[in-house]
Amino acid sequence: MEHQYPSQLLEKAVAEFAKLPGIGRKTALRLVLNILRRSEEDVESFTHAVSQLRKEVKHCKVCHNISDSDICPICADKQRDSSTICVVENIQDVMAVERTGQFHGLYHVLGGIISPMDGIGPSDLEIESLVNRVGEGNVDEVILALSSTMEGDTTAFYISRKLAPTGVTLSVIARGISVGDELEYTDEVTLGRSIINRTPFENRQ
Amino acid sequence: MEHQYPSQLLEKAVAEFAKLPGIGRKTALRLVLNILRRSEEDVESFTHAVSQLRKEVKHCKVCHNISDSDICPICADKQRDSSTICVVENIQDVMAVERTGQFHGLYHVLGGIISPMDGIGPSDLEIESLVNRVGEGNVDEVILALSSTMEGDTTAFYISRKLAPTGVTLSVIARGISVGDELEYTDEVTLGRSIINRTPFENRQ
Repeated sequence: MEHQYPSQLLEKAVAEFAKLPGIGRKTALRLVLNILRRSEEDVESFTHAVSQLRKEVKHCKVCHNISDSDICPICADKQRDSSTICVVENIQDVMAVERTGQFHGLYHVLGGIISPMDGIGPSDLEIESLVNRVGEGNVDEVILALSSTMEGDTTAFYISRKLAPTGVTLSVIARGISVGDELEYTDEVTLGRSIINRTPFENRQ
Repeated sequence: MEHQYPSQLLEKAVAEFAKLPGIGRKTALRLVLNILRRSEEDVESFTHAVSQLRKEVKHCKVCHNISDSDICPICADKQRDSSTICVVENIQDVMAVERTGQFHGLYHVLGGIISPMDGIGPSDLEIESLVNRVGEGNVDEVILALSSTMEGDTTAFYISRKLAPTGVTLSVIARGISVGDELEYTDEVTLGRSIINRTPFENRQ
């Protein structure tokens, strides 16, 4: 395969793209050839956006979400209810909750989830800063919005133990059948939980 | 969706990645967050490879393949048979033919295929340079290795008309059932052609 790539420059760029998650060498080549067809200014704007992001982006000092400033727009928004904190694993989860339009409090981004298999322990996450934030006394409720997995449950349990001394109200997001799900095809654990955690008919949504 | 992206820098980088073919905003976000987790040198090496490729890559003056120099390694290789030219649509096709290890001549990259639907006519392709190359007199055979589509057939027909005055031997790659195909599931046009273009049993491969 001496001539597999006709150009070293091409090969290098393909190798760099292939480092991205879910991008194999074939897809990487397709992306690189697309870039080659673009104007130099266009490619410049691509590489500039990437390197500027890496160099200049910050993490909010309060909630650890990605931000352009020391305090993120959500934490800086006086309209939001600072007495409620929603704890999530990562930035995508903040965006997912924001898209629902149902939450008006602040966030706390853990930066991961407790996972002994991946060597991630509580000290790798922003748990201490959460405890400090709650300890400052202006927080009434902490909502744990973590994945419904073993890691999510472990993390929730650990946080609940850490927050117990503060006396803050702790809640978890509801688990049950998804909107649009057919009962027949719902797994039994989910269905069982949704029966145990049934809500009054008047409160249905 | 005021806060859909917590950072302008993030949003810009996601928008740039989402311009790539087959990359939606969700995938783009995943790629960008992966880049954020890397070291600054690592990101630098990514952006450098991309911008260097765009600025410095050349096209071979003979075959129009991508190259780091004025003449690509294939055209510069004295071991190769310069009397046979394989005409292909693009760079990926050169790589595909090279991977077979069955071709030892030179290439000619058209840079596309005649497609009136996409507004691509013969003048947008490297057809004139092919005719000139053949006209110089050292070429015995031109192999058309184009896709088995209407556009491929149109392009092949156009090239055959243009090359007719030169008297060069013109051939097309064989069409027939793929290796590993079952007859029962082969479409009838392909099967019909493979019967018409049958080869002597002694020549089977």
